[in-house]
Amino acid sequence: MDIPTTPARFDSAELSELLDGRWAHVRSRVREALAGIELPDGSDLDTESHRARTLEQLHLLAKSGIPELGFPESCGGRQDIGGSVVSLEMLPGNLSLMVKAGVQWGLFGGAVVALGTERHHERYLRDIMTLDLPGCFAMTETGHGSDVQNLRTTATYDPATEEFVVHTPHESARKEYIGNAARDGRLAVVFAQLVTGGKSHGVHALLVPVRDANGESLPGVRIEDCGRKAGLNGVDNGRITFDQVRVPREALLNRYGDVEPDGTYRSPIAGAGKRFFTMLGTLIRGRISVAGTAGSATKLALEIALRYGDARRQFERPGTGDETVVLDYLAHQRKLLPALAKTFALHFAQEELVSTLHDLRDSGDERRQRELESRAAGLKAVSTWHATRTIQTCREACGGAGYLAENQLAQLKADTDVFTTFEGDNTVLLQLVAKGLLTNYKDHVDELGPLGMVRFVADQVVEAVFERTPARSLVRRVADTRRDDVFDRGWQLELFEDREKHVLDGLARRLRRATGDNAFEVFNSAQDHVLRAATVHIERRVLEAFVAAVERCRDRDTAALLDRLCDLYALSTVEADRGWFLEHERISPRRSKAVTEAVNELCRRLRPHAVDLVAAFGLPRQWLTAPIATGAEAARQRTQRAHDRAPER
Amino acid sequence: MDIPTTPARFDSAELSELLDGRWAHVRSRVREALAGIELPDGSDLDTESHRARTLEQLHLLAKSGIPELGFPESCGGRQDIGGSVVSLEMLPGNLSLMVKAGVQWGLFGGAVVALGTERHHERYLRDIMTLDLPGCFAMTETGHGSDVQNLRTTATYDPATEEFVVHTPHESARKEYIGNAARDGRLAVVFAQLVTGGKSHGVHALLVPVRDANGESLPGVRIEDCGRKAGLNGVDNGRITFDQVRVPREALLNRYGDVEPDGTYRSPIAGAGKRFFTMLGTLIRGRISVAGTAGSATKLALEIALRYGDARRQFERPGTGDETVVLDYLAHQRKLLPALAKTFALHFAQEELVSTLHDLRDSGDERRQRELESRAAGLKAVSTWHATRTIQTCREACGGAGYLAENQLAQLKADTDVFTTFEGDNTVLLQLVAKGLLTNYKDHVDELGPLGMVRFVADQVVEAVFERTPARSLVRRVADTRRDDVFDRGWQLELFEDREKHVLDGLARRLRRATGDNAFEVFNSAQDHVLRAATVHIERRVLEAFVAAVERCRDRDTAALLDRLCDLYALSTVEADRGWFLEHERISPRRSKAVTEAVNELCRRLRPHAVDLVAAFGLPRQWLTAPIATGAEAARQRTQRAHDRAPER
Repeated sequence: MDIPTTPARFDSAELSELLDGRWAHVRSRVREALAGIELPDGSDLDTESHRARTLEQLHLLAKSGIPELGFPESCGGRQDIGGSVVSLEMLPGNLSLMVKAGVQWGLFGGAVVALGTERHHERYLRDIMTLDLPGCFAMTETGHGSDVQNLRTTATYDPATEEFVVHTPHESARKEYIGNAARDGRLAVVFAQLVTGGKSHGVHALLVPVRDANGESLPGVRIEDCGRKAGLNGVDNGRITFDQVRVPREALLNRYGDVEPDGTYRSPIAGAGKRFFTMLGTLIRGRISVAGTAGSATKLALEIALRYGDARRQFERPGTGDETVVLDYLAHQRKLLPALAKTFALHFAQEELVSTLHDLRDSGDERRQRELESRAAGLKAVSTWHATRTIQTCREACGGAGYLAENQLAQLKADTDVFTTFEGDNTVLLQLVAKGLLTNYKDHVDELGPLGMVRFVADQVVEAVFERTPARSLVRRVADTRRDDVFDRGWQLELFEDREKHVLDGLARRLRRATGDNAFEVFNSAQDHVLRAATVHIERRVLEAFVAAVERCRDRDTAALLDRLCDLYALSTVEADRGWFLEHERISPRRSKAVTEAVNELCRRLRPHAVDLVAAFGLPRQWLTAPIATGAEAARQRTQRAHDRAPER
Repeated sequence: MDIPTTPARFDSAELSELLDGRWAHVRSRVREALAGIELPDGSDLDTESHRARTLEQLHLLAKSGIPELGFPESCGGRQDIGGSVVSLEMLPGNLSLMVKAGVQWGLFGGAVVALGTERHHERYLRDIMTLDLPGCFAMTETGHGSDVQNLRTTATYDPATEEFVVHTPHESARKEYIGNAARDGRLAVVFAQLVTGGKSHGVHALLVPVRDANGESLPGVRIEDCGRKAGLNGVDNGRITFDQVRVPREALLNRYGDVEPDGTYRSPIAGAGKRFFTMLGTLIRGRISVAGTAGSATKLALEIALRYGDARRQFERPGTGDETVVLDYLAHQRKLLPALAKTFALHFAQEELVSTLHDLRDSGDERRQRELESRAAGLKAVSTWHATRTIQTCREACGGAGYLAENQLAQLKADTDVFTTFEGDNTVLLQLVAKGLLTNYKDHVDELGPLGMVRFVADQVVEAVFERTPARSLVRRVADTRRDDVFDRGWQLELFEDREKHVLDGLARRLRRATGDNAFEVFNSAQDHVLRAATVHIERRVLEAFVAAVERCRDRDTAALLDRLCDLYALSTVEADRGWFLEHERISPRRSKAVTEAVNELCRRLRPHAVDLVAAFGLPRQWLTAPIATGAEAARQRTQRAHDRAPER
């Protein structure tokens, strides 16, 4: 197979700089900060001790300067949204801590920043930032996780006392799975249907105190403990039920809608649906953080599995007197290296996403904001599924050793498992992406439900989704310069693009058949098509982000190596979906086989660099504690070989 | 789509009887026995309490009569090997207990039965059966998990004292991950290289006492605790190191090899390799039990997810005023129903496997024994990967509720995760299957290592692997009677068969290129092909087992429903591998799309029966405790709907 150059060595520092990217300064500072604080994962503890330790660690983090990144300068923050996302990603070795930090500063603090106004900022933000005021983000209800627009908690305005009455009408409306609720939270951002003068204005957020300074729940507030979970047991999730709890009118986070003392409702945005989705849009940071953290957890798992695979030997290799290093087996490379390539691809796509989030902040550019939300939804789904699959594969690749708690993979698996569910169920998120692709991002953002898209598409043409992205101009250039084989980057890019167009066109045609009566049936029979449209779109965006990153790389050998890794991402993605490409005659059977051959050959060529490649991500060293990845296995192999070779056996 | 009949209802009792199969009487008795003993899973406990509870439960099980099934009549057992495998499968709700039972009675007791002779049977079996003598099965070493033939522990015969000296020469040779070792085991079956008169005779098993009656480790025996694991924490895994430990000559389990007082070695089997693999073959029951237990755990997870999916609603369904039941969504059906179909298929394949094991016992039919071992290896790999994937999917399908410990999926995931590794790493097992397919099952069973197969295939022709199986004659008949579309069972069967032949032929051709020097490279570059050959073989066998079961079903509607489920297994398997079928022009692009359409349609038709189908497996009711699957969700939905419809909201 005529494979392009794979360099014998590359410049690790160059690669690390490229990976650190725009927020390299934040990554460096967090690495330094973490080197100075011990933050061991507490999953060996019982639930209560684990929670207590996580809270202590959160206080250490509060003092580290890290949380300030995400807060406005007016309260002593540094207003660096991108930096705040990147800093949270740096905690993959203690995911309970990461999630608790995300709840306190990202969701709870972020909601007060984004949905509140000056009166809330002045009164609360500093205490939230310092953790003097621990809080909750109470959106999800027992009966409504994905369909948040239809949650059932009510906040009814009473003009007589100028108060809102917050109430849980029945068990399904109970706030469910609320982080920080079972033990530590004192104030909650509560999402509820706002009712005034007998009329509902849709979902709004209010600040509702839930505990006093002694940790006792307040009158009318019932808090239950969600109990033990598969992982993340350092986070105290709870259920909250409100029984006619009264809060002052000013408790409403009133940036997008307010109630005057006499009960008159006012909002700059007409339409309850659009208003709520505008609010949700301002909270997108949490979803982006989950995608980033899924990425770091994947990197940590791969570093453990690759270091072990590079030391562990099994079965004698004839003629050498030695046993074969397991990472030399094609099957082992196949398990880990395409996953490594995809991890690189997602890393660069995530960097672009965080940049957009950072640059777009308060720009008022609604179209770009919708695009950001769609991309965030898609990348979150793809990154978290990739994490679940890859960490599982790493566990298996480490055999029984991977099952021992000391080797970290068990906890990484258990902790990240819920990432595919929280901050938006992945399946629901992909539907959101598909809807975005089928509409022109105008003012149609009214519904999260699956049927939303059927209504929008009915009279619409599929929009040109191939917009200017950081990679697009490069793509055109690259497409014209390579050779005509499976390593041809231009061919790869066109293949991804063509697939996306075809899938979308077909979907639009199917959904246009919907009339009023059969909308559900039409949507439902095409649901697999809907999910595919979203997936192939994201895969194309991710490939483009990787291509753009290779082009940014200045060192020739490093760029050449990244080029091969990018080939591996592109071709293993094609291989996994070759059923579709063949079915639609986009590749010939012969080329399809060549793709598989190329993936095998790329694995072989990249294998010598695998450990250096994963190390270049520069995860803080305190997170790598697995004995199998930090020398124990290598030492054991040396002893065994010395013994096997000794004259007296 | 012209889909064959799917009946409106079916006879659950009929289906249950078919599923209970040959050991229906054992299943009934175990269900009754378990109804009388509470055996709650202890994963909410700390490690020590969990282990203590599991031991107590094991004593309850010892008294239940269940362990007797697997022991010879001579010691009070019932000599029902098949029944003993089936009975262990019935414990999916407490997998620590199942695994500890498997260690004590299956591995430890099983090794004494199979490898020992009368002197061992008389002295030990009764106490093993009653659990008066808890023991260990000490095969795996830290440095050699898969390549057991090359383990490093030695048992050197000393004619002066007529003793064996059991010794661990270095850390890699330490016995690793030994169940029952960290806390409870008193006697161990230890596998070691037997050396007498300066000559090694390969791996043999000896009985070595490791603890006294007070639980203290004996002189020369060092036992360490493996510590916390991802799951199965009720099982006390440990590491054992021997420092020149002496045991009498009679401690050797001498059925396949013995040492006379003067040190002369004698064995009925020439060749250390063949001898060891004959010994391993007698221990196959453990691997078969793991496949069966993986199946039950999958059934339990599916029952939870299907019951929840049948109650849970999300997003309003226009025109109905109700929300949509989540199992009505195609995407949800796609997650769960093909997995359910495969679970049925594997259930029937497992039943055939257990039958062969039972009937073959001590028959001396070496060829059938090799086939059994190969099939056991393949089904274990396929069943445990299916369990890992399906339980993960069930967790995700239950959203956040699936992540709560109370809903069981977390524990099922964690406990079953290691099934893909223990009792043979799945990747290594599939290589074993491929090797079996490439040789003619003669006396070539000499090596477990990957290169073994290269050597065997060099001068051999691929054997006709399509032997007489319980399904084969039916297959021929069925192949002639159906219509020519994707639902044509004959077409499906031929497609599976043709794929297997083609993959095997190609593999044999590739491996024949090996010469002495390049054997590793030739094998390694074809390793993905090797694994595929094994997989497609097992998939064909599994389909045939399902087809045979449908033919056994006497009730017309039940058979028709099973027929559709069998279609779903066949067609979703084709769909998942349509890349291969298209690449090799076994199906046209158009037929490939028809397969996907058929899978969607089958999901829609089978959906109304999903809960009844999974319930027909008849898992003991004490294992189903998840609130989301036992009424809580349904009750909540009723309350919410009543409230939503009340005039005053």
